[in-house]
Amino acid sequence: MSHSLGGQRGPAEHERRDQIISAARDHFRHYGYSKTTVADLAKAIGLSTAYIYKFFDSKKAIGEAVCGHCLGDIAQAVRSVAEEPKPASERLRRVFIELARQGAALCSANPKMHDIVAAALMEKWQSCKSHEVTLMSIVRRIVQDGREAGEFERKTPLDETCRAILLALEPINNPILLAQRLEAIEEDAATVAGLVLRSLAP
Amino acid sequence: MSHSLGGQRGPAEHERRDQIISAARDHFRHYGYSKTTVADLAKAIGLSTAYIYKFFDSKKAIGEAVCGHCLGDIAQAVRSVAEEPKPASERLRRVFIELARQGAALCSANPKMHDIVAAALMEKWQSCKSHEVTLMSIVRRIVQDGREAGEFERKTPLDETCRAILLALEPINNPILLAQRLEAIEEDAATVAGLVLRSLAP
Repeated sequence: MSHSLGGQRGPAEHERRDQIISAARDHFRHYGYSKTTVADLAKAIGLSTAYIYKFFDSKKAIGEAVCGHCLGDIAQAVRSVAEEPKPASERLRRVFIELARQGAALCSANPKMHDIVAAALMEKWQSCKSHEVTLMSIVRRIVQDGREAGEFERKTPLDETCRAILLALEPINNPILLAQRLEAIEEDAATVAGLVLRSLAP
Repeated sequence: MSHSLGGQRGPAEHERRDQIISAARDHFRHYGYSKTTVADLAKAIGLSTAYIYKFFDSKKAIGEAVCGHCLGDIAQAVRSVAEEPKPASERLRRVFIELARQGAALCSANPKMHDIVAAALMEKWQSCKSHEVTLMSIVRRIVQDGREAGEFERKTPLDETCRAILLALEPINNPILLAQRLEAIEEDAATVAGLVLRSLAP
């Protein structure tokens, strides 16, 4: 393993790791997760498989990292609409729409990556659990802001409200359900958002 | 084909059809849909495959019928709680809970049949579309009753309200989502029902 100057081993390794993830992203995108081997990735980057195994335990660990990046991009887009300086109800509505858009875009532009995310969800990969935690924190922030501003009711326990919203988000957020009604997904997102907002009325 | 006395060809054929469906139900339950052939079913009933093809075009058509029976049983159970002489809000809550119970029971007691229903849903079989139409009519009846009784708000267009409730039911009703959180499904159903009922408040 090549060590950088000034003991910068961490950053150099970090770069290598990113390079592997990036190659994996390309390969998975074109050939799918199941048809890509660690040897394919090693060949693409010009490394040995043994070298790749220094960074990742298994192909699944690489898949996890790629899936995590992909969900991270979606979460970032959702977070940016969630944080706009607008009323909480508007921010919540936009979270629903943005999730639908991001999911539909992934599904259309990158169906093989979408399949990985769907498989990851079925097998309860850590990246999917983390994504749910992120979504929950985004929703919770908006609900709290809405309660403080008097926009939302405060009788229902906060945890219950947030859990219910996450469940209501599932037909939009779940890649398997989303893929089944891709043409209607934005309209569905608006419909569910409407119901959720009515449920939050003080 | 044996014709009955008094021109009762219809009913006799109906019986034969039921016999095939019943044999298919048993076979699918034990061996799964993909591992069962039409020849297996013919053998089990003591008929020729050609005879079975007089009643069903294909194995898929038999699968459709079995799936339809299975979903029909669930719909029947849901309908009976929906029609109890109780306030609309209570009936709607029970629809959520009953769907969760029925889905969980199918998934636990009869996992291979559950897999068929899940596959049927992914492939948008007619039996699944019919089931959704049935659920929609059950929900619509309750919402209308609740509106007439002054229990539910009437500002939102009826179609939008009902469509939103069907979407909110999806994490409970969808066999794939249900199978992923079987232990929590009744609690989840109660949580979503709570949100939906808050959204219906006048």
